Amino acid sequence: MATSESATKYLLDESRIPRAWYNIAADLPAPLPPVLHPGTHQPVGPDDLAPLFPMSLIMQEVSTEREVEIPEPVREVYRLWRCTPLYRARRLEKSLDTPAKIYYKYEGVSPAGSHKPNTAVPQAFYNREAGIRRITTETGAGQWGTSLAFAGALFGIEVQIFMVRVSYNQKPYRRALMENYGARCTASPSEETQSGRAILAQRADHPGSLGIAISEAVELAAQRDDTKYALGSVLNHVLLHQTVVGLEAMEQMALSGDQPHVLIGCTGGGSNFAGLVLPFLGQQLRGEGPRYRIIAVEPAACPSLTRGKYAYDFGDTGHLTPLTKMHTLGSTFTPPGFHAGGLRYHGMAPLVSHLKELDLIEARAYHQNACFAAGVEFARAEGIVPAPEANHAVRATIDEALRCKEEGRSQTILFNLCGHGHFDMQAYIDYHAGKLADQNYDEGELAMALAGLPSVGA
Amino acid sequence: MATSESATKYLLDESRIPRAWYNIAADLPAPLPPVLHPGTHQPVGPDDLAPLFPMSLIMQEVSTEREVEIPEPVREVYRLWRCTPLYRARRLEKSLDTPAKIYYKYEGVSPAGSHKPNTAVPQAFYNREAGIRRITTETGAGQWGTSLAFAGALFGIEVQIFMVRVSYNQKPYRRALMENYGARCTASPSEETQSGRAILAQRADHPGSLGIAISEAVELAAQRDDTKYALGSVLNHVLLHQTVVGLEAMEQMALSGDQPHVLIGCTGGGSNFAGLVLPFLGQQLRGEGPRYRIIAVEPAACPSLTRGKYAYDFGDTGHLTPLTKMHTLGSTFTPPGFHAGGLRYHGMAPLVSHLKELDLIEARAYHQNACFAAGVEFARAEGIVPAPEANHAVRATIDEALRCKEEGRSQTILFNLCGHGHFDMQAYIDYHAGKLADQNYDEGELAMALAGLPSVGA
Repeated sequence: MATSESATKYLLDESRIPRAWYNIAADLPAPLPPVLHPGTHQPVGPDDLAPLFPMSLIMQEVSTEREVEIPEPVREVYRLWRCTPLYRARRLEKSLDTPAKIYYKYEGVSPAGSHKPNTAVPQAFYNREAGIRRITTETGAGQWGTSLAFAGALFGIEVQIFMVRVSYNQKPYRRALMENYGARCTASPSEETQSGRAILAQRADHPGSLGIAISEAVELAAQRDDTKYALGSVLNHVLLHQTVVGLEAMEQMALSGDQPHVLIGCTGGGSNFAGLVLPFLGQQLRGEGPRYRIIAVEPAACPSLTRGKYAYDFGDTGHLTPLTKMHTLGSTFTPPGFHAGGLRYHGMAPLVSHLKELDLIEARAYHQNACFAAGVEFARAEGIVPAPEANHAVRATIDEALRCKEEGRSQTILFNLCGHGHFDMQAYIDYHAGKLADQNYDEGELAMALAGLPSVGA
Repeated sequence: MATSESATKYLLDESRIPRAWYNIAADLPAPLPPVLHPGTHQPVGPDDLAPLFPMSLIMQEVSTEREVEIPEPVREVYRLWRCTPLYRARRLEKSLDTPAKIYYKYEGVSPAGSHKPNTAVPQAFYNREAGIRRITTETGAGQWGTSLAFAGALFGIEVQIFMVRVSYNQKPYRRALMENYGARCTASPSEETQSGRAILAQRADHPGSLGIAISEAVELAAQRDDTKYALGSVLNHVLLHQTVVGLEAMEQMALSGDQPHVLIGCTGGGSNFAGLVLPFLGQQLRGEGPRYRIIAVEPAACPSLTRGKYAYDFGDTGHLTPLTKMHTLGSTFTPPGFHAGGLRYHGMAPLVSHLKELDLIEARAYHQNACFAAGVEFARAEGIVPAPEANHAVRATIDEALRCKEEGRSQTILFNLCGHGHFDMQAYIDYHAGKLADQNYDEGELAMALAGLPSVGA
């Protein structure tokens, strides 16, 4: 392989860390449907959310200001790893023999190894500003829990994490990383909450789910004034914080002299995808940029965007959260086991769902073996081993690059490499051993979960 | 913790990646003792090493030129992660309440998570330039094997790694990472070499050692013209390649406006330590800089610099390598089990040993629990979880900072954070569970290993 075909890195000085997050609510052609109270089905106001979140984050959740200033203490912590690099994947282009230009933004350089600290840090900051002493949260694969543990350690806030039991048992190293930062990590369902005890009463060896873990974390936060809840994806303010990814990428693409035609990200709750694409999409919506093709890539085993219903649903299994309109597989839906734990959520960010409904983005789903094959190809060409979640974006990128080859077009593709796979080597071992199944979800279970959606007049 | 006390990061643009490695041989007050042929005990010439290394690396091994140009294709790969950041650890300073200023160079941002690719990449490059198709090597903890596998993938060279059997069994994830890059990873001792078979004949369940794995890799390389051997530490050319660390750090310290008084690195074979300190020491030797305090930190369970003998010894257990003068515990010495696998080598780089003899550096040894305590303290203050090896440097840094506090002196300390600990969470789990022993090596075994040193007239 010719070394003159090396990756090219586009760096930004830390003075280029954005000073404001970009809020696409200011540029949407139609507003987001309102969030509803789970009991009354009436739109919730900021006060309804106050038991769970500090008011500064609630105001960001409903803000329609285009720019939300990033507090200086948050930018100071961002400096630990931001600006993150943007690369042109010249070796991958060459091995695919494609006329396409492939760029990727790499978020794996954060201390947690993923994009999650982009929102964990401001969430910990605003909670501390509000005098909060403890934050509860849930985690599946462990990326989010690790990131909040890290942010909590830096801002002197106690963090309690409910970790889906099956992951808790399978991923002791992730748990150790959270505990190493001083966080408390509990297997969910647990005996520590009513929601947990109710599940355990039905089934003592319940493997847990993100929906259950959310119920436990929310319940605990609602009980104490000094405790709030934090979510690592889905919500507007989380997606807002992630826009640092896309804002930096826009500046870096300008340095490269290329303009992306296709933007790609993997989607579980939607935050890394949104973080990359929203600033570009905003430019398009304001008539300041071209029309982009924007592709959300999800696992075929948990396909909320491609197979879910766009409807009001709960964020959790215990039905403690408000109702949001989103693409959902139903809050009781349990996907089959697969190795991208960060993409196993039943719903999709309301904002990402809304963009899909407005035809501003497209979506596709892949099975996991095809994704791992893409990840291995990427690692051998570019040197970075992607997380299983990120492999979905890599798969779609390679397929788009091969399409360009077939069509003889030199398009520019930009994707978000949202994290490294150093904590996920068991998945790669299973892949190489031919032990990964491309399981489909259970059609009957999906039908039942969708039938159980709350009936909301809207 | 006040956020105004955040870490400060000193970045260099990639145009500042050094164009030449720094060779301290040009500035040494006394030359290194010669390398001797294992049979004749006469100094070896370049041709004697030709079966193992390409001539370009052999010439670097013996060069006395102050600057050795870094080939452009190597700099291009370096761009994937270099220049690496240098941080001021303000949060750690604050939590220690010390007047000392603490800086660290962070090498964990490479795709392999450590400093090892700094030499793996040029070694793969020079081998490919020489038309070599396959490189053999050994690995203990797996950092070096991972790095050479990564470099081999980028330059299209086959890599075969002999991994110490106990690590091979305990660290399947490290192995998976090497295989993911396309390398072949074999448990050592193996049936694939005479050296391996001889050991297995004595003891079928032999756990292996770095010395044995080196014998196997060297044996295989010597047999075939298209195959050479690569070493990840100890040798002059390896230390030379690592000087990119110190060269960048010098420039970054200049940006900070501070001048280090104390330089600290952990030492196994000596390469990350040397990489940081040699450029500073060269400045001192040329009369262009101050006299630095330079501290090499090693594990108390494998203390070659503090308890070994400065003598001619073999690099491997099978006695296939040339003899080099170094601080050694004897090539048959087996340290007790501890969690910094990268620091378990019986010898020390001849160059680092020479500097110790010349009183240009000092050395100290720590037990592992004290090192893990320091690593956890560092992670909670600075956000980065260090590798167990790097924890030795963190321990010494904290102790020096506390000394400054006691003495009321505001000295500046710079240490090399040579890798992250994401692959070493089992060690942290054991530490938190109180399961780590501070084992001493066996005095009788050390005496026996030292008694077995080859008798060389010199």
